[in-house]
Amino acid sequence: MSETFLTRLECGQCGRSHDPAVLQGTCTGCGRPLLARYDLASARLRLTRDHLATRRADMWRYAEILPAAGAPVSLGEGWTPLVPAPQLAGKIGVRRLLIKDESVNPTGSFKARGLSAAITLARDHGAQRVALPTAGNAGMALAAYAAAAGLKAEVYCPADTPRPFVQAARQLGARVHLVDGLITDCGVQMREDLGNGEWVDLSTLREPYRVEGKKTMGYELAEQLDWQLPNIIFYPTGGGTGLVGMWKAFDEMERLGWIDSARPRMVAVQAEGCAPVVRAFDAGSAAAEPWEGAKTLASGLRVPAAIGDLLVLAALRESGGCAVSVSDAAMVRAARELGAAAGILASPEGGACLAALRNLVRDGRVRPDDSVVLFSTGTALTYLDAMEGVA
Amino acid sequence: MSETFLTRLECGQCGRSHDPAVLQGTCTGCGRPLLARYDLASARLRLTRDHLATRRADMWRYAEILPAAGAPVSLGEGWTPLVPAPQLAGKIGVRRLLIKDESVNPTGSFKARGLSAAITLARDHGAQRVALPTAGNAGMALAAYAAAAGLKAEVYCPADTPRPFVQAARQLGARVHLVDGLITDCGVQMREDLGNGEWVDLSTLREPYRVEGKKTMGYELAEQLDWQLPNIIFYPTGGGTGLVGMWKAFDEMERLGWIDSARPRMVAVQAEGCAPVVRAFDAGSAAAEPWEGAKTLASGLRVPAAIGDLLVLAALRESGGCAVSVSDAAMVRAARELGAAAGILASPEGGACLAALRNLVRDGRVRPDDSVVLFSTGTALTYLDAMEGVA
Repeated sequence: MSETFLTRLECGQCGRSHDPAVLQGTCTGCGRPLLARYDLASARLRLTRDHLATRRADMWRYAEILPAAGAPVSLGEGWTPLVPAPQLAGKIGVRRLLIKDESVNPTGSFKARGLSAAITLARDHGAQRVALPTAGNAGMALAAYAAAAGLKAEVYCPADTPRPFVQAARQLGARVHLVDGLITDCGVQMREDLGNGEWVDLSTLREPYRVEGKKTMGYELAEQLDWQLPNIIFYPTGGGTGLVGMWKAFDEMERLGWIDSARPRMVAVQAEGCAPVVRAFDAGSAAAEPWEGAKTLASGLRVPAAIGDLLVLAALRESGGCAVSVSDAAMVRAARELGAAAGILASPEGGACLAALRNLVRDGRVRPDDSVVLFSTGTALTYLDAMEGVA
Repeated sequence: MSETFLTRLECGQCGRSHDPAVLQGTCTGCGRPLLARYDLASARLRLTRDHLATRRADMWRYAEILPAAGAPVSLGEGWTPLVPAPQLAGKIGVRRLLIKDESVNPTGSFKARGLSAAITLARDHGAQRVALPTAGNAGMALAAYAAAAGLKAEVYCPADTPRPFVQAARQLGARVHLVDGLITDCGVQMREDLGNGEWVDLSTLREPYRVEGKKTMGYELAEQLDWQLPNIIFYPTGGGTGLVGMWKAFDEMERLGWIDSARPRMVAVQAEGCAPVVRAFDAGSAAAEPWEGAKTLASGLRVPAAIGDLLVLAALRESGGCAVSVSDAAMVRAARELGAAAGILASPEGGACLAALRNLVRDGRVRPDDSVVLFSTGTALTYLDAMEGVA
């Protein structure tokens, strides 16, 4: 097991340092998310691009720049396929189109990455019980990694979450609590229920390690593309951890000497019925206001307010990207197109990226000579009934 | 792209040779399954165990002993996690327990392997339309790989197949035909519908390449265990291609100089409501008679008659293994245990293996010092409603 070069936790907003020897939540100064910082100058001597060729085929191949000090809680997460879709590329009118298929993860979604990292650190710090509010996929992943680590898992999700998420989390041994309301209400209920007892809050960006797991999507993209990043990345954005993580990964990789300073334009894709980041981006705001009456069948996008809004908006702007929303019908049709034209079994969130790409090609923000990566963040298998009703 | 060392196709029963330059079905002499044969003496000079360290992280890492001559139709199939389950091992009373989690495949099951290989060869031989009868998982995989290859897919499945299989295959662009009856009836209907038109029959073991894809499960086990095979392998057995494929892989690996002559005991696990292999094994028969009134919620085990019966039974006997059946209730309870105690999201077929292991530990056929591998062949996500009713 390689050792981590983690040195400290830093507030992404005010810069205050926090000690990683203690299990931290958010910044003790301003309450914003903490980001893990590594001694990259030393790490680059121990881990070069060439070393990676013989590493394990999961996200822990990047152990030096991940937070675990010892053996991780792993079920084989990450190092997912990056599937070329030449027929779709031709049909849509871009030079190259690749789909990062995150359904090929334990429990069928990208959430496995963040929770493998967060549960590893929680266990290493002696946690017995872990909990989070979820739109669905994170609950399954929490349950699986908690089970693998021998921890108790408490999952809080909206009562109208598609049933497969609930059933699967229970099969994985979690206690699932159904809450009338949205994911934000679930968080409130969770903190009320569990109070000051012995438990660890693994809510998105309220602890520093889920984003570390998710940043490996950025590392993998670079490695799988032989260290040439694409021109544009489309990412379905609920809480935004994946996007924030990839943006962090690109910066780290440059300081490791693995990539140059060129960056992809990052596109955050949201649902028309819940688009707080799109609204803030278009208004030129640094922060996103909570979205009232959030409604979309893409559970993962039904996140009316996220603590990572500042980081997401900053990444979009620094990258020269944008934020766009699509309708539920458009995302379901596009998910079917990913299926029939590329063989990718995509959830509505993955479909949303293809629908957004088509819109941006049409209005010229994506050009015919662009190379594009779409994230299909989870399997369709949890959404089949929800999608079936959409024409 | 490495070249294949495929030389010919040989009947597993009568030994007759067939030319792989033509798309072959079953033996033109006796009608039994054909097996691919390679020039292993030459292959071992080109592909050593050491070469594998830098190969792609999917089943095509073994390209020299797979049938494709050029680029395969690939969605990232294979090289799935082999997850240690130490808590379960202790609870059950075996030295070491590992779970090969085949849910971490495109479309969520081991069927991806066989269909990646079969669709690659069908496409390379000019096929436009492919078809098969299925209990569920093979239909999803056929649809995905046909879509990726630009071929039309026709899926025939029992009308009472769990709906998620049907919905997902349709999302992947396949035409799904529901047939009143079992998988054997679906095969009859398919051949009647499609007749002598232009199509390729990809039914289990009625063409020689699905087994080639599935044999990679055997190669991966050996490589992941540093070339020391376990003492016992539990494999849920419907058509039996996976078991036949692994047995073939062990033989090939010995001739490649990668493993010695030691073999695991192979255990075929079936459902009490459909156990033709168990009945034949216990009776000492070389062949299995069709099972009347097949009934089990594990769709993948509801295969009343399989063309590979001779090969399956021979492998069980040569290995010193056996065939056992478990009840539906036992397999569902065991799937939940795989979830809560190991974090594996297993279908009833995977649960069946754990239930069978427990039975064999109890009657002494598995010993406390044995190392054991269980196959979890597919995700629970397609079976959630079917399993929920079971106490």
